[in-house]
Amino acid sequence: MSQYARFAGEMLARIRASRPVVHSITNYVVMNSTANVLLAMGASPIMAHAPEEMKDIAAISNALVVNIGTLSKTWIEAMHIASRVAKIAGKPFVLDPVGSGATSLRTDTARGIINSAIPTVIRGNASEILSLSPAGGATRGVDSMHTWDQAAGAARELAVSLGTVVAVTGEKDVVTSGSKTLVVTGGHPLLGYVTGTGCAASVVIAAFLAVEQDAVAATAAALAFFGLAGERAAAETSVPGTFWIKVLDALYSITSGDLDASARITEG
Amino acid sequence: MSQYARFAGEMLARIRASRPVVHSITNYVVMNSTANVLLAMGASPIMAHAPEEMKDIAAISNALVVNIGTLSKTWIEAMHIASRVAKIAGKPFVLDPVGSGATSLRTDTARGIINSAIPTVIRGNASEILSLSPAGGATRGVDSMHTWDQAAGAARELAVSLGTVVAVTGEKDVVTSGSKTLVVTGGHPLLGYVTGTGCAASVVIAAFLAVEQDAVAATAAALAFFGLAGERAAAETSVPGTFWIKVLDALYSITSGDLDASARITEG
Amino acid sequence: MSQYARFAGEMLARIRASRPVVHSITNYVVMNSTANVLLAMGASPIMAHAPEEMKDIAAISNALVVNIGTLSKTWIEAMHIASRVAKIAGKPFVLDPVGSGATSLRTDTARGIINSAIPTVIRGNASEILSLSPAGGATRGVDSMHTWDQAAGAARELAVSLGTVVAVTGEKDVVTSGSKTLVVTGGHPLLGYVTGTGCAASVVIAAFLAVEQDAVAATAAALAFFGLAGERAAAETSVPGTFWIKVLDALYSITSGDLDASARITEG
Repeated sequence: MSQYARFAGEMLARIRASRPVVHSITNYVVMNSTANVLLAMGASPIMAHAPEEMKDIAAISNALVVNIGTLSKTWIEAMHIASRVAKIAGKPFVLDPVGSGATSLRTDTARGIINSAIPTVIRGNASEILSLSPAGGATRGVDSMHTWDQAAGAARELAVSLGTVVAVTGEKDVVTSGSKTLVVTGGHPLLGYVTGTGCAASVVIAAFLAVEQDAVAATAAALAFFGLAGERAAAETSVPGTFWIKVLDALYSITSGDLDASARITEG
Repeated sequence: MSQYARFAGEMLARIRASRPVVHSITNYVVMNSTANVLLAMGASPIMAHAPEEMKDIAAISNALVVNIGTLSKTWIEAMHIASRVAKIAGKPFVLDPVGSGATSLRTDTARGIINSAIPTVIRGNASEILSLSPAGGATRGVDSMHTWDQAAGAARELAVSLGTVVAVTGEKDVVTSGSKTLVVTGGHPLLGYVTGTGCAASVVIAAFLAVEQDAVAATAAALAFFGLAGERAAAETSVPGTFWIKVLDALYSITSGDLDASARITEG
Repeated sequence: MSQYARFAGEMLARIRASRPVVHSITNYVVMNSTANVLLAMGASPIMAHAPEEMKDIAAISNALVVNIGTLSKTWIEAMHIASRVAKIAGKPFVLDPVGSGATSLRTDTARGIINSAIPTVIRGNASEILSLSPAGGATRGVDSMHTWDQAAGAARELAVSLGTVVAVTGEKDVVTSGSKTLVVTGGHPLLGYVTGTGCAASVVIAAFLAVEQDAVAATAAALAFFGLAGERAAAETSVPGTFWIKVLDALYSITSGDLDASARITEG
């Protein structure tokens, strides 16, 4: 059992004891599914996007997720306000730059949010993370065209340049602050046949950040936990509709001991 | 079998015979799940929020639900128009003040809707109902911090002051017009691990109001029906993903006779 | 085995080989479920509605679906832009006129989109298609009040007048260009107890259009495929929550050979 795996189980216990409130400004596609992910694992979701209530929501939240999967002008405004408010309040803040690189609007929005408030963690697939690096990149829709290996270097570079933590998820996940890098293995290919599983990983990260200040360790623990839920679900079914239901079931059922025993987190 | 339980079965039969159209202006998180709740139980959902079509929608609807779970300016405008149109047309109208008390925007919006058109039924958790009473209150996110007992008094007070029916749902549910109070027991703790179960209860209430003018009896019957669906689902599984699917299954499968036999509605 | 049924299996194989990107501007209710439909069957969904990114999205998409189930002014603007861009780029484009006939806003919006860019395929229920014909019609909510037989003539008329393909779905489906008509049988009544199954049929059509230029054949194949998924699901369960999960499972599991063997497509 690695040191980081043991930390993961402790963090999960803290989430279930404190039921942190995770505020999401997220895309329409995954609002229901990510709310269910948070509830199943023992956290408490709140979805709100009206600029007028961003401060009130921040006051009762323990973490923020900004997900740019479906955009419009007023939502971008709310994302900026919420990000700044979270930073000022010292609340952890995850950016999920869905489709960054695929359209100028998305790339510009992701960069704009980063410029106004540096996220605690940026989580994306290889193409999305590459699009945010100085070198740039291109994304095919919301799927990734780049390999994990290509993106790992860009993740380190982006983490160092912003002084933050960057996570690239894919066949294996890398979590890096530049100086410290963890690699998480797990998950299952069926996650690619269900919408919003990347978005789900981001809200799980936010819940872990709400109870743990070491952002690299918290992010790796979150990804190990979510990956384990995918593995457990895939052990029971091989078809995607049933699979997602069983992922939710597993997020509820996996104990801290299970996570300690199964998390595969190594130093990269 | 209580008198009210027998009424419940009759109402359910009327819903399935007439398939009432329930118009929802609701939050993004639960649009899919509450539409599925209405279809599974035998009603017909319609979701629409454009101010331009509120009158046309009202003309083909049998009941309205306004749920303030995710807000923006144009949606608040549509909620006001739809509420007034429903009142003028004599259609029953349920207000679900999600998160009222948690942010000024939500409390003000709930109060504003009530001021422009008094709902047939207001359904919320303890904190939400307390936030609408003259005494006020505070809400932690969209979850309730107040006990049912604290809220029952506030519900009666609010019902009397507005001349309407107020329902507080929680471990047990109270439905009151001030002069008449019914208590409904049932449901299951797993409902707390799935998003939008309170919102689902609200649309079920609207479907019952579409076929029954006694709003206290209709609301109690609806809550007994929804609670029974939760109990049936929980008898088959102990994990939340599968549980919700089985709630939908139960809403379809429960017969009028089942509801008569199992509804636990008492005078409070 | 009919000639068209064999084509259906070939098309499904092409979808799974090329994973076409289907851009949807669709209603909030079905965003999650239709994205899951596309992923389960082997296509790749992208949801986007910001007018600013319509051109960028079109450049990476292989087909477009415009679904008017929930409307607001800025969304209608995006629908117009996306439709025109798709036409100019030569990408197939499906219009799903949800609730056309039920409100002036919806009927006007559907007609407006058709006027600015003629869809490759228009798919609706009987009432919706009738509302778009010169004779007009009336819709009860989003459900259909007209029989398939009444609508088949209107579909042919509309197809000829626009020079496009029109599909009316119901107990049996008709797909017509005016000169060529195919009838598809299949599906299951439980599809009526789940929200967004018509919308799901429309995204499946778009995925088939992305790999096949014969729009009548592609649409019939898509409807046969979706209907078969409903039949397979209904063979395993008789309740709607579980049913929908099994529809997703079937969309993933059905092979080209299965579709060849089971598709019931006849010339009408």
